[in-house]
Amino acid sequence: MLKNIFAALPTDTGCETFDDLLNVPGLRIERIVSHGQASPPDFWYEQDEDEWVIVLQGAAVLQVEGHDTLVTLKQGDHHWLPAGLRHRINSTAPDGPTIWLAVHR
Amino acid sequence: MLKNIFAALPTDTGCETFDDLLNVPGLRIERIVSHGQASPPDFWYEQDEDEWVIVLQGAAVLQVEGHDTLVTLKQGDHHWLPAGLRHRINSTAPDGPTIWLAVHR
Repeated sequence: MLKNIFAALPTDTGCETFDDLLNVPGLRIERIVSHGQASPPDFWYEQDEDEWVIVLQGAAVLQVEGHDTLVTLKQGDHHWLPAGLRHRINSTAPDGPTIWLAVHR
Repeated sequence: MLKNIFAALPTDTGCETFDDLLNVPGLRIERIVSHGQASPPDFWYEQDEDEWVIVLQGAAVLQVEGHDTLVTLKQGDHHWLPAGLRHRINSTAPDGPTIWLAVHR
């Protein structure tokens, strides 16, 4: 289990990386590191769990189904994605890692 | 509700400040800002809720009942405090704000 969210940052392998910080029944907290990745066109996340995300480094743009306006997340911005809300990652910062903290329950 | 965890940092008023980032049934996520505060001597938190904390800026030292070793949290370090675990804040950084993200459920 990763002890520090800013430690052991993965290099850019062309893929996002996912590391749990906590995993107990009913609550999982993970670090996600993106290097410019986005969701494929027309791909939507539709999750059974609630998710709360915050961007701790870098930046990202979310697209939420039914909303014309994109959600821009800069360092420190957070967003609530209740279960079933279809969403996709429109973009993440191309010039360095974007570090997310995600709370799933 | 606070939109950015690093925004609108309170000045040092001599007290810790608490701001919710999310508050839905069964899940509350808050920012705590400390300016060198610690728990009073012999004061222990003993909570009905589970709590997960991460230090995003600054530093802190936790004391957990029954453990001789103090838990030092520097930027990015996190700690799990299950319900009922008696703990106290031994110290926080004296030279600037310590920003905590706390997940309660």
